Amino acid sequence: MNPTFATPPTFLGTARTGAGARFSVAGIPHDIGTTNRAGSRFGPAAIRAASRMLCDGVNPYHWTSPTALDLADIGDFEIALGDIAESLRRIEAQAGAVAGQLVALGGDHTVTLPLLRAAARRAGPLGLVHFDAHVDTWPDSFGQPMGHGSVFYHAIREGLVDPRRMIQVAIRSPVQREVWDWTVGQGVTILTAEDCHRTGVDAVVDRIRGVAGDGATYLTFDIDALDPSQAPGTGTPEIGGLWTWQAQAIIRRLGGIDWRGMDVVEVSPPYDLAEITALAAATMAFEYLSLFRPG
Amino acid sequence: MNPTFATPPTFLGTARTGAGARFSVAGIPHDIGTTNRAGSRFGPAAIRAASRMLCDGVNPYHWTSPTALDLADIGDFEIALGDIAESLRRIEAQAGAVAGQLVALGGDHTVTLPLLRAAARRAGPLGLVHFDAHVDTWPDSFGQPMGHGSVFYHAIREGLVDPRRMIQVAIRSPVQREVWDWTVGQGVTILTAEDCHRTGVDAVVDRIRGVAGDGATYLTFDIDALDPSQAPGTGTPEIGGLWTWQAQAIIRRLGGIDWRGMDVVEVSPPYDLAEITALAAATMAFEYLSLFRPG
Amino acid sequence: MNPTFATPPTFLGTARTGAGARFSVAGIPHDIGTTNRAGSRFGPAAIRAASRMLCDGVNPYHWTSPTALDLADIGDFEIALGDIAESLRRIEAQAGAVAGQLVALGGDHTVTLPLLRAAARRAGPLGLVHFDAHVDTWPDSFGQPMGHGSVFYHAIREGLVDPRRMIQVAIRSPVQREVWDWTVGQGVTILTAEDCHRTGVDAVVDRIRGVAGDGATYLTFDIDALDPSQAPGTGTPEIGGLWTWQAQAIIRRLGGIDWRGMDVVEVSPPYDLAEITALAAATMAFEYLSLFRPG
Amino acid sequence: MNPTFATPPTFLGTARTGAGARFSVAGIPHDIGTTNRAGSRFGPAAIRAASRMLCDGVNPYHWTSPTALDLADIGDFEIALGDIAESLRRIEAQAGAVAGQLVALGGDHTVTLPLLRAAARRAGPLGLVHFDAHVDTWPDSFGQPMGHGSVFYHAIREGLVDPRRMIQVAIRSPVQREVWDWTVGQGVTILTAEDCHRTGVDAVVDRIRGVAGDGATYLTFDIDALDPSQAPGTGTPEIGGLWTWQAQAIIRRLGGIDWRGMDVVEVSPPYDLAEITALAAATMAFEYLSLFRPG
Amino acid sequence: MNPTFATPPTFLGTARTGAGARFSVAGIPHDIGTTNRAGSRFGPAAIRAASRMLCDGVNPYHWTSPTALDLADIGDFEIALGDIAESLRRIEAQAGAVAGQLVALGGDHTVTLPLLRAAARRAGPLGLVHFDAHVDTWPDSFGQPMGHGSVFYHAIREGLVDPRRMIQVAIRSPVQREVWDWTVGQGVTILTAEDCHRTGVDAVVDRIRGVAGDGATYLTFDIDALDPSQAPGTGTPEIGGLWTWQAQAIIRRLGGIDWRGMDVVEVSPPYDLAEITALAAATMAFEYLSLFRPG
Amino acid sequence: MNPTFATPPTFLGTARTGAGARFSVAGIPHDIGTTNRAGSRFGPAAIRAASRMLCDGVNPYHWTSPTALDLADIGDFEIALGDIAESLRRIEAQAGAVAGQLVALGGDHTVTLPLLRAAARRAGPLGLVHFDAHVDTWPDSFGQPMGHGSVFYHAIREGLVDPRRMIQVAIRSPVQREVWDWTVGQGVTILTAEDCHRTGVDAVVDRIRGVAGDGATYLTFDIDALDPSQAPGTGTPEIGGLWTWQAQAIIRRLGGIDWRGMDVVEVSPPYDLAEITALAAATMAFEYLSLFRPG
Repeated sequence: MNPTFATPPTFLGTARTGAGARFSVAGIPHDIGTTNRAGSRFGPAAIRAASRMLCDGVNPYHWTSPTALDLADIGDFEIALGDIAESLRRIEAQAGAVAGQLVALGGDHTVTLPLLRAAARRAGPLGLVHFDAHVDTWPDSFGQPMGHGSVFYHAIREGLVDPRRMIQVAIRSPVQREVWDWTVGQGVTILTAEDCHRTGVDAVVDRIRGVAGDGATYLTFDIDALDPSQAPGTGTPEIGGLWTWQAQAIIRRLGGIDWRGMDVVEVSPPYDLAEITALAAATMAFEYLSLFRPG
Repeated sequence: MNPTFATPPTFLGTARTGAGARFSVAGIPHDIGTTNRAGSRFGPAAIRAASRMLCDGVNPYHWTSPTALDLADIGDFEIALGDIAESLRRIEAQAGAVAGQLVALGGDHTVTLPLLRAAARRAGPLGLVHFDAHVDTWPDSFGQPMGHGSVFYHAIREGLVDPRRMIQVAIRSPVQREVWDWTVGQGVTILTAEDCHRTGVDAVVDRIRGVAGDGATYLTFDIDALDPSQAPGTGTPEIGGLWTWQAQAIIRRLGGIDWRGMDVVEVSPPYDLAEITALAAATMAFEYLSLFRPG
Repeated sequence: MNPTFATPPTFLGTARTGAGARFSVAGIPHDIGTTNRAGSRFGPAAIRAASRMLCDGVNPYHWTSPTALDLADIGDFEIALGDIAESLRRIEAQAGAVAGQLVALGGDHTVTLPLLRAAARRAGPLGLVHFDAHVDTWPDSFGQPMGHGSVFYHAIREGLVDPRRMIQVAIRSPVQREVWDWTVGQGVTILTAEDCHRTGVDAVVDRIRGVAGDGATYLTFDIDALDPSQAPGTGTPEIGGLWTWQAQAIIRRLGGIDWRGMDVVEVSPPYDLAEITALAAATMAFEYLSLFRPG
Repeated sequence: MNPTFATPPTFLGTARTGAGARFSVAGIPHDIGTTNRAGSRFGPAAIRAASRMLCDGVNPYHWTSPTALDLADIGDFEIALGDIAESLRRIEAQAGAVAGQLVALGGDHTVTLPLLRAAARRAGPLGLVHFDAHVDTWPDSFGQPMGHGSVFYHAIREGLVDPRRMIQVAIRSPVQREVWDWTVGQGVTILTAEDCHRTGVDAVVDRIRGVAGDGATYLTFDIDALDPSQAPGTGTPEIGGLWTWQAQAIIRRLGGIDWRGMDVVEVSPPYDLAEITALAAATMAFEYLSLFRPG
Repeated sequence: MNPTFATPPTFLGTARTGAGARFSVAGIPHDIGTTNRAGSRFGPAAIRAASRMLCDGVNPYHWTSPTALDLADIGDFEIALGDIAESLRRIEAQAGAVAGQLVALGGDHTVTLPLLRAAARRAGPLGLVHFDAHVDTWPDSFGQPMGHGSVFYHAIREGLVDPRRMIQVAIRSPVQREVWDWTVGQGVTILTAEDCHRTGVDAVVDRIRGVAGDGATYLTFDIDALDPSQAPGTGTPEIGGLWTWQAQAIIRRLGGIDWRGMDVVEVSPPYDLAEITALAAATMAFEYLSLFRPG
Repeated sequence: MNPTFATPPTFLGTARTGAGARFSVAGIPHDIGTTNRAGSRFGPAAIRAASRMLCDGVNPYHWTSPTALDLADIGDFEIALGDIAESLRRIEAQAGAVAGQLVALGGDHTVTLPLLRAAARRAGPLGLVHFDAHVDTWPDSFGQPMGHGSVFYHAIREGLVDPRRMIQVAIRSPVQREVWDWTVGQGVTILTAEDCHRTGVDAVVDRIRGVAGDGATYLTFDIDALDPSQAPGTGTPEIGGLWTWQAQAIIRRLGGIDWRGMDVVEVSPPYDLAEITALAAATMAFEYLSLFRPG
């Protein structure tokens, strides 16, 4: 029995690595869609390494444990160097080939678009619980057709998500008025980070549950939803973010939603310190998986 | 249209760099007044670089934008190497020559004294909203006549600020009882960081507005007002500080005060991580400027 | 009179270094009991260096000052390289030889066991106020008889602490259900970090005072009780931790308890940033000492 | 007269920023062609900041100074986020519009291809002095048509450089035998890093001068030609590299060659330490420019 | 075909992970024998990650490639937390169970003792080529019976190595005269780092080949043999060390020796920068493996 | 007997701290004379901590040991915050009060001027062996009368050193022609870093011994004489510097000179990595002290 530092660096140290599990964890080392600092190509490895802090014991809130689930770490998806469009095609194809539910470790937020495409093909338009500092509904990314700020513009336009069942949590970056208005006009609910700090965890949980409803729902967690002090290792930080304890407390109270997949993205290890961002990301995936019970 | 990482490193990427603007941003790379860690000589460059995260879009609280103002980045002030007194003279002269309102990027807190001298020459004794971990009213700095801990002792003694219209926010360092008592005895209002955490943003805003009143007022933001986790890049940190979201929420609610200038000081990049301190400083200046409307 | 950066690196810059003081500060550079990242062997030096920020002035909450106490920094304890059992024997012997009250700077949490052995020999079973992310009551540490996760299992079994007078604050790591149940079954009170965030400082203080009661009590502060953003320099971080302002506010309200000793452990400088973890640790010891008055 | 830390962060602190100079320095913040670590998008800013160490005084080898030349810093080229092909088109167009000689600050090595296209349009096939750890003549980059490892494959195929007048210095990475043989088969001269260490600076200079000859020649300096200890801030380091003193001594002895342009690429500041990589890059450009005299 | 950053983090990205290969790479995350900075418990993971820079292509000196060998990465050995003696027993047992030749990634230098015990059981007393800053023949480690400075004292005393066939390269730390004399008195050849710098690679190679002779020989490479600038990530650095290019050039010329195993130890990632130490360690193992040909 | 990491952080762990020793080590935490990066105020503490690597054993070149000398660490000199002139007066006074020979740990190079004033008062004009990247004979420092670049201009003008017995080693920064010519015109010998690399250690030793002669001589070692890869923790780095092994080998061969004092300056820990700069500085002082024998 080896201590934490000597545990194999799969997600939660799982020994299962092949296909066919109920839950498959995959890394997606793609980061050329970022508009500022890169480095989230190294996110999957860092999140896996940090996750080893979480595999000795069970979640003390739920008394459930992801390691007791049928859980595999299937490694990293193949991408195309320097080519966003082709990378997105490959990601979608690989996600589509996963039998069970996928928990993806980014990579920048661009990767969520092909993941949603794959998920929506199975489940139809999805509800979306979206933690982020940015609305990510820009029609283009600094003049380019695709980038990490345009993901949900495309997801809504393509009908992958139902905007009336979509809620954005911890939003706070500067934004063009017309982008904001378009988003709200589509039916999306936006909770700013200041809203979250001022109204508290329970109010946020109520809003999320109210918006997501009973339909099939996807959780996307951009690590920059968190405050930069708690998640410095990311590409486009904004001050005034959510606390990890709040995010953790919120996710813990989202059991019973019809979850169809999850990703945690934008962890950039070159900017991290002492693995704290990677640990935050690993814990968000751990909390998500703690919502499920074996069998 | 270039992405964030390729935006020119002026404040908010502004292309205007010459004299005569309504708002002029200047760097003051002076840090030999610090009593502990140096490095804030590199603060102006770091704050400018980080500010580029804030120039694509508008402030989502006010729906105003500093980039829509008549705003110039006039570069750095000249200082005298290794000579506090001469540097202060040069800073005052250069500040006095700026036509519009000055937003200064420090540098250590010593630079606020010549800025107040220049501002008071125009506007008379100023109200002062002072975010800091330290009262900075020591009569001397470890036996020397001038240093970053003595700025407001001199400012009060010289009549540059009206102490009854002066409020200190986030104070928490150890301090001599007689320094505290002198400060309070002058009429200064002190809110400790614990006060802020326990009473909340709205109460702090009320106190600030009540103290500042209707007169001409100056805002000085020592970055160590913030918690060291959110502003590690500074010289004299104290634990238990203000959150960025609180500082941001407070400044957002200080519109309508008769503002005459602002500085953000004590950002020391050698101790920063992933630019988070510089980004916090840039955002405080961004929020201050968001209180104004074009025209 | 030298500025902070030129103050000698004893705890609080004290010039007293010999035996016989009312309060003796000692470093214990032992860290081979850690189950993840090492490095707390360098904790004592880092905490002492950071403490210099706190020696110019008095505690502005109590208007008392540790530097006014009969306080000595007696240096570091001798340990046995690579041998936990022998190191624990040496630590206990050296702690037992200290005349007054001991304030120990770790080192990993293993060092608290011999400190409690020495303290209980004088005072009988102790009350224990235990700040930590982990219960540290595992019967073994990854198969080994002793490690930093087993300290309080042994302390309870050996009768060094009275578990009904023992309270754990900021607990949040994954844990085996049987370890948790054993701990609670012994009578220990557990406050999770989420409890602390949701109920607030005053409620936590009430619980601690209620549990600790009037008997002789020991304070052990594992720095990972704090959030990783505020204490990145530690070996087994868990997100969602206590804020420094909360910990500081709590300790400030624990005066009048019959304190018999204190330690702050698990500060690992190789993972720290800009000394913020070391400063947090130094401040916790400073606040503890601020509960006492000279004479 | 401001000290180094207060000098404006243009290249060598030059005040000339507009078009039409004899020598134009431009940044090219493009790094999505890298096959390992990213970050050279921040190279231009870092190299400029570090170059300020070099602008007070003249080159003590030549007693010439780049600051005495007609030298402008024309800012950064515009690129296309996440699109290598379009970025290369834009870079070529902007390089083609520069009147005098261009000194480019990368960015990853991909940027050299459009720079050579622009230069060859004026001067015909160029001699090439190529410092690098890698031959960069792979026909593809991990299956993609373009990347930083394929630049000179394309440059040779397109006739931009004359391979018999091309020399590679400091080569040492693992490489496929067929790639090496193709390169040599084209007529390229390869000096390994071990060759350089064992034969010495003068022998390397002789080889370079012999290969480059009298024709128009271009200098491309991949910072990973240097040893990782001297240039840690790069994406694809290989141990056993050239020393900075050797590179500097070599370039100093390359006067009189018919130089038509120069670039220094692959500086990735997120992996740098204390600016040493950026300073090395700045110095290589400084030494190149020191080969010229005003007028 | 994935780029370097997306290659799986086994040694050289090998897909073979099971038992029975001709060459087995194993990590040994044991570091409690160090007398100064810890952290080499994280060495195996870091060396594996860095080795991915070396798996695309072949060694350009030998035109051989480790990836063409029958090579497996068998993961990390199990150790006993906080117990040197028991860890050494476990390491020896696991090493003894490996069928082919073992290439071990430390861990601190203590791990070489059980590796030599396992190797000598098969091959009898071994020749030893020992790169290190320290002689590691102290009879005790700061008063303790076992530690990373005593490994070869025990190895010689136990007859695991033949001291007349043992050579130490790059030695330079302060040392007790009696330890040096005992070592030399046993027949060990010592080359100081200054010797190496002054006499050159070829002379060192001659000495090594002369000492090692034709018998079964083991290579142990303490990364602190290298200069701290090239290997900062280690626990007991000494200035004035070997260059990576020299070490690489030396190992390349040691083909034909009857090699029976190799380790590279003392890589401590918390003190590393940009993976340069880990890359140096990976390259030393890569060069060792490049001495062999398939079949 | 404690391991390295648990040795007290005096220079070489010496227990003697009072006045009157034959050799006194003092720290001088003054750094406001620097023209670029600050931080050498923390140099003395870092050099002392790093020196502990050198106190277990004797110098293997000379078989002498500084710890066997009558050696005391007398702590840090008092300085005046933010006031160069007054600090220089205080340093001179304190240096003048030291009975034996002083080994000073800077601080920036400005501190050498008062040290030379104190030394010359006893011994008359001194020979000077000066390791540095910069000539430090500027008549002013960016327009100010005193700074770290003007030290030897003043020392020569004041007659503290005999310029014909003064040699500068490792010089390489850009410099004004007139400053260089003035220096040479005074009789100073300048060896550039490239000279040192190309002619070798023995030639440098010969030049130094020839220039220094038999008179009383002082050694000043600016850590930026070393290459930035080996001494990144400094304020004004220049690439192409001396290797530590060369500097060490040179000092080792300077026995028998009539040494009257030594300093090592410009170590700036905020820019250091893994203590390598501090260790280099500590080793230079260790080598200097190794030139002496007890009694």
